[in-house]
Amino acid sequence: MTIFSKIIAGEIPSYKIAESDKFIAFLDIMPLRRGHTLVVPKIEVDKLFDVPDDYLSELLVFAKPVAKAIEKSFDCNRCGLSVIGIEVPHAHVHLIPLNDASDVNFLQPKLTLAPEEMKAVQELIVSNL
Amino acid sequence: MTIFSKIIAGEIPSYKIAESDKFIAFLDIMPLRRGHTLVVPKIEVDKLFDVPDDYLSELLVFAKPVAKAIEKSFDCNRCGLSVIGIEVPHAHVHLIPLNDASDVNFLQPKLTLAPEEMKAVQELIVSNL
Repeated sequence: MTIFSKIIAGEIPSYKIAESDKFIAFLDIMPLRRGHTLVVPKIEVDKLFDVPDDYLSELLVFAKPVAKAIEKSFDCNRCGLSVIGIEVPHAHVHLIPLNDASDVNFLQPKLTLAPEEMKAVQELIVSNL
Repeated sequence: MTIFSKIIAGEIPSYKIAESDKFIAFLDIMPLRRGHTLVVPKIEVDKLFDVPDDYLSELLVFAKPVAKAIEKSFDCNRCGLSVIGIEVPHAHVHLIPLNDASDVNFLQPKLTLAPEEMKAVQELIVSNL
């Protein structure tokens, strides 16, 4: 069971942003930027492009209001999207507010936010949904 | 008219990989890696999440066989996906074969491939579609 499946099952807490029958969105606990959110399908499939088509066809439509809420919540040009997927074998899409390509460079140090800061980020995004 | 609309209209040549009524996929002429491909909706919308839902719902399903052909064509762990979108005001998805996050770092120098090398990359991907 991946860490994301444990989050989906409620066995591990998360800063949840949105949820549907097929997807969950929650804050990345090692964010590149404030507002960095993961969108995860509720099935354990390693690679994004191995996820069944009925999920793929709904993924971006599910992510859209989350991305727009992130754009409203933080000073950014737009919400970017990235799928790398090496670290957790459960497909996930990174939504990251960006002003330029350096904001979505995964080689840069991650932010360390205290729980109360994570909670504030969560509440801000949810308030803009 | 964006440079991508000119490519879609056939006014500017491209190394085309695939095309449907709603999307076109062609090689990025400033690739991060051999096989770096762009998937572009055939409507001029700047931000990905402003693209209409009937396009968003088909985008990843269109991209899937292209990504799988890229995975087959190059030595990589998988095909990654990235949307930044600052440079051209026409939504586009980068498909990039990757082994780790450094392969999709947009701050690294781009490759310079001769036309015959680009043609060979195109033919290899198309042969694996």
